[in-house]
Parts: sequence; structure tokens; C-alpha cells
Amino acid sequence: MSESRTEAGVTPAAAKILAPTYEGDFVLPTSLALECGCSLECPTLHYAVYGRLNKARDNAVLVCHALTGSALVGSWWPEVFAPGAVLSLEHDFVICINMLGSCYGSTGPGSVNPATGEPYGPDFPLVSIRDNVRAQAMLLDSLGIKQLRMVLGGSIGGMQAMEWSIQFPERVRQAAIIGVTPVGAMGLALNHLQRQAIVQDPEWLGGRYLPQRQPRQGLSLARQIGMISYKSAPLFEERYGRKPNRSGEDPWKLNSKGGGLTGGRFDIAGYLDLQGRRFIERFDANSYLALLRTMDTWDPTRGYASAAEAYGCIQARLTLVGISTDWLFPADDVRRFAEAIREAGVQCEYRHMESAHGHDAFLAEQVELVRLLQYQ
Amino acid sequence: MSESRTEAGVTPAAAKILAPTYEGDFVLPTSLALECGCSLECPTLHYAVYGRLNKARDNAVLVCHALTGSALVGSWWPEVFAPGAVLSLEHDFVICINMLGSCYGSTGPGSVNPATGEPYGPDFPLVSIRDNVRAQAMLLDSLGIKQLRMVLGGSIGGMQAMEWSIQFPERVRQAAIIGVTPVGAMGLALNHLQRQAIVQDPEWLGGRYLPQRQPRQGLSLARQIGMISYKSAPLFEERYGRKPNRSGEDPWKLNSKGGGLTGGRFDIAGYLDLQGRRFIERFDANSYLALLRTMDTWDPTRGYASAAEAYGCIQARLTLVGISTDWLFPADDVRRFAEAIREAGVQCEYRHMESAHGHDAFLAEQVELVRLLQYQ
Repeated sequence: MSESRTEAGVTPAAAKILAPTYEGDFVLPTSLALECGCSLECPTLHYAVYGRLNKARDNAVLVCHALTGSALVGSWWPEVFAPGAVLSLEHDFVICINMLGSCYGSTGPGSVNPATGEPYGPDFPLVSIRDNVRAQAMLLDSLGIKQLRMVLGGSIGGMQAMEWSIQFPERVRQAAIIGVTPVGAMGLALNHLQRQAIVQDPEWLGGRYLPQRQPRQGLSLARQIGMISYKSAPLFEERYGRKPNRSGEDPWKLNSKGGGLTGGRFDIAGYLDLQGRRFIERFDANSYLALLRTMDTWDPTRGYASAAEAYGCIQARLTLVGISTDWLFPADDVRRFAEAIREAGVQCEYRHMESAHGHDAFLAEQVELVRLLQYQ
Repeated sequence: MSESRTEAGVTPAAAKILAPTYEGDFVLPTSLALECGCSLECPTLHYAVYGRLNKARDNAVLVCHALTGSALVGSWWPEVFAPGAVLSLEHDFVICINMLGSCYGSTGPGSVNPATGEPYGPDFPLVSIRDNVRAQAMLLDSLGIKQLRMVLGGSIGGMQAMEWSIQFPERVRQAAIIGVTPVGAMGLALNHLQRQAIVQDPEWLGGRYLPQRQPRQGLSLARQIGMISYKSAPLFEERYGRKPNRSGEDPWKLNSKGGGLTGGRFDIAGYLDLQGRRFIERFDANSYLALLRTMDTWDPTRGYASAAEAYGCIQARLTLVGISTDWLFPADDVRRFAEAIREAGVQCEYRHMESAHGHDAFLAEQVELVRLLQYQ
């Protein structure tokens, strides 16, 4: 089906896409012991850098990407690099590292397990947010970066930014954490639904599918379930309402496959289907499962005697951003998260982003985000 | 897995369940021409009645059930019959009719298509809300009921109550319409996800599965997607939060099937799985698809020159109830719906139900609902 739909923020204008100064791999010199008790043997971190590291090596900024993002932050967050915005290609050395478990270059379920010579597939272990941050620190060590001017990210990227501030207090001067708290019950529910959509697809084959034969229907449905949580009801209402699909379908008529049980689609359904189709061309089902688990299990206070003990470690100046229509990580939860951190004696400011775009606003409304983050 | 979980409202105390005065079938004497252009040959309406019709036949109340409900309103809405509540077994003749398309006695996809001698399966046509109401009117005709003291229902039941008021203005004195408007874009999205969950299950077999081999995984996932929209995030947070599943699973450990991509479940996941398992024992996948489509396509203004023309027909006194935490049919939308009807010159009151239970509140918090509806 040929449909023309554009999505703000998802495909930025080509002219704005920044090329990295360098893009490459860092292979950990040792095995990475994981919180779950397993380990990864010399895993690879794929990363991209923008700008130049200065002589003092004190101009580094770490950007942490969102769930299905890549190390190419210049491609998906270009406005954050705009002149006078948050990051400066002239003054900053920006580094972005693909998460372990992803399918964009770092070690993930599609990588070969050195123990077996076969892809990890379903044997890929749980790599926690803390595990990721510890691996990232080794990469920064290898570059001689002792301290970050700033670490920032939205969603699961914000989880990493927060964990950096707790695990390596002396290495972070400033952190911006956008649209995130530990996943709440509704978020865990949504992730549970997405997980089922994938593993119930018979093409998943217990996670041992061939790369070219992944569980497309299940992954598409998972993405669509995710999409409803990334956007907001008011945005859907304004954009799609009860309109029939723009390709000319009629919900009162049978669909092309016939049968009275499924009819022509509404426009919102056409939109979701398109998002699903696009996603399965660019992402891997096992990676998606791995990252959902990384997200689900994040609890920055895990292993500490109390929340105050965990947050009390932080030396960085923190900015937490809540998004007004975000129902995956509600703004009120982010505000309370900021309060809990402040109560531990940390300098932590809450800023409120007004947007109809829901959770996705940090990608879809970058100019507004930049405005909020500019004065830190 | 043996888990003890109870759900307020879903399984009322046995002592409160009311037995109907009569439960039986009405077979339409003619074929029912449907809005979609198809027809149903002499379809059956399964119905239940409570109390006695008086001599004047002016004490009839029609209750319309929700999506997966049955004609046995005394079983699922017992508090509405409590002494001094909304309905009186002493004074009212209460009738509840199973929707066409359902699997609880009325003609649906599992019924035999007289044209083929085989079950309708995927050939079951779209039966609109208006079609249902017209069929129900024929049943009331057969009982000699010219006018209803009241028609009421929540969710898709409320759609029917509204449609009754528009299509048969002189036959309805009063209507209570709870937690509903035409389905918005987010609701259409959620129904689209549920539909996919079912039709992507290979056991669906294009809708031609045997009754004892229905697409259980797909139907379970559909129900779980539905459940998150029937409840509210605050309720989930309070009940389940980030707790691990009560059966003793650990999200940090592998699940029983092994593999690092799916771990032990959180409590909310155990809850959803249980809801899915319960549902597939009591409901049919094709019926679910049929009713989703009935719900999706409801537009009470369809075929009228304007909304004012449609609503202007209404002679009944209307009460619309919005539920504070309902995000499937948001209270603000219900309030605006009531305003639009009032603007057409109709006596239409909006009442606001405070509840943490989300859309489900009209079933889960019946005592509070009764309090709101008592003085009409």
C-alpha cells in the first residue's frame, strides 16, 4: 500500500542530519560481569562522536539514546545541536553509545556467543541499565575521559543518565533526564503486552529465528502497542479522530481480505500499521525483547539501604523534565521523582514540558525541549 | 498455576446474584436488514427478564450489556437491583437482551448460517448498534411493550441506550448512558491492536477454527490489551506497582521457559495473564471481533443532516455519566457529548463519577454508580 505519511521528529529534514566525527566499535578488554549473575565475554560497544575532545579532556558530553535509537544522535536529535542550543559542535565532544542488547552495532542477541559460536538468540542475558553504564564508563576510560560536562537522555536514555549520576558521582557535572522514572505498573503492563505479541508469533521460534525471517507480525504488533503509549490521546484525536483510513477504506465495508469480522480501517489503524511495517524493517525482535527487560528492571535504588542512600551519592546538578501528556511516564511521577532526589540533598530541578505529543515529545518537539534545557 | 486473585465487581458475592424470572430466546419472524447492506435471516435474540410486567405494560426497563456481558444482568449488575437502588424487582419489569454477534445465546459468528448450513464464522456481517436496537424493539413489540420507563447501560450498552433514545423517541421515557461516547481515536487504536492479536494467531484460521480450538493466545492477548484500557494507571500503581508476581517470580531471574529475553513476571503481568486465561474460557474470538466492529462503527449522527438533527429527535430525559479515571471514554468527552445533546434542546444531565477504577468503574463500583443514578 502506498501511503504518504510524515511524522514530526522521526525523520528530520535531511539537511539537519549531522555526520559524526567518528563512528566505530570499542571492544571491552575483559568480560562484563552482569547484575543478573551472567557475564558477556568482551562485548562490543558501538559508538559515535561529534566534535573534538579538547586537551584537558573536560568537554565530553554523553548522550544516551532511547529504546530503539542508535549511536547516531546527530541523526535523531539534530535540534539539540543547533547553534545556541544544548550541545555545541564547536565546544563539546559529544559521544553516544549504542546500548548492549540493541541491534545497531553493540553486542546483542544477534551477536555471536563466543561460548557456542552461534548467535546468542534467546540466551542473551539480562543486561541492566547499571551494566550498560559500567560498560560505557570503560569506553570513556579508554578515551581518557575522567569527567563528563553533561550526560543526558530521554526515556531509557534518561535511566542511563540517572544511573551515571549515581554510580559515578565524581564523573558527572550535570545530567538532564527527560520523561522518565522507574517504569510504573501501567508501563510494565504495556511491555508485558508487547513481549507476548512477539513470543506468540510462531515465527519467533523460541528466539532462534534466522535474521531474515524474524517474527514480523508479532514485532509489528509490539511496536504498535508501544506507539499508543508514546503518543497521546489528544494528538491522536486531533490527527486521526474517527476518519476512515486515508487510502480510501470504509469501516462499514468489508476489508480487502473479505469477511464481516474485520472491516475497512480507520485512519488511526492505517497509521499504526504503517509504524509497524516501518519498524520491522529497521529493528530486531530479540533486541526489542532484551531492551524491554533492561527497561523493566531498572530501579536506581536497587542494592542501596534506602532511596536516600542511592540518590545521596549524586554530585551532579540534575534537571528532570516531565512531559504534560506523557502517560507512559506521567509528568507528576517525574515531579515526585525529582522531589525524592532533592530530599536526599541533591541539586535537582524539575522542568515541565507542555506538549500534545506524549512521551515522544522529546523527539518530536526538539525545539521546545531545547528551550527548556537551554539554561542549566 | 494456582493463584488466588479476586476482582471487585467481576464476580459478585454469590448471595447477591439474582435469578431471572425467565430466560429464553426470541426468533425474529423476518430477516433483519442490516445497515451494512447484508441481512440476518430470522436471527435469535437471547434475553432474560426480572420482575413482572404490569397490566398497563408500562413498567419495563431495558438494560443493555457491555462488550462481553450477557443477558443475565442480575448476575453482573446486582447492586443496581438493591432495595432503594435504580431498579426494583417489585415494581420494574427488567429485560436484558444479548447483543447480536455475541456468544451468549443470540445469533453470532458461531451460529449456523441458514444459507450454507455451516457456522457463519468470518462471514458474520457487521451488525451495527442501530441494527441491534431495531431487533430489540421487535422483541419488545412481541411482549406488547410500547414504551420503556428507562433504558440504561455502560460502555457499548450505553451506545444502545443512546441509540434507543434517538431511533424510538416515543418509546423511551428516561435513559442512563454510562462511560461512553462514540469511540475516539485512542479507542479505535486499542481495538485495532486487539483485532490484530486475534487474526494474527495462526489458530484463528481465517475465522474458521473449530469452537474447541479457538485462537487462545491471540484472544488472551486481545483481552489483556482491553484490560489496560478498562482500568486506570493509578489503580494498577496502587494494586501492583513494581511488585514481582505474587507466585514468587523474580524479574531478575530467567522465567520458567529459560532464556534471557523474558524474565520472571511482575505482578501486573501475572494479573493480566490471569485475565487472559479466564477470558478464553468464557468468550469466543469471532464474537469478540464482531462486537469490536459494532462498537467501532457507532456514530449516532450517521445518516442525519447534523448532530443537532439526530439528537433533536430525543424525547427521553437523559443522564450521562463520565468516570473520572476512564481513559477509554474520557469524562471530558462524555461531558461534551452531554452538552452537544443539550444544545439540541434535549433534557440531558451530566453526572461525574469519581473512581480509581477507570472505565470498569460502572461494573466495579456499583454502589457508587447507584448513588449517582438514584435521583433521576
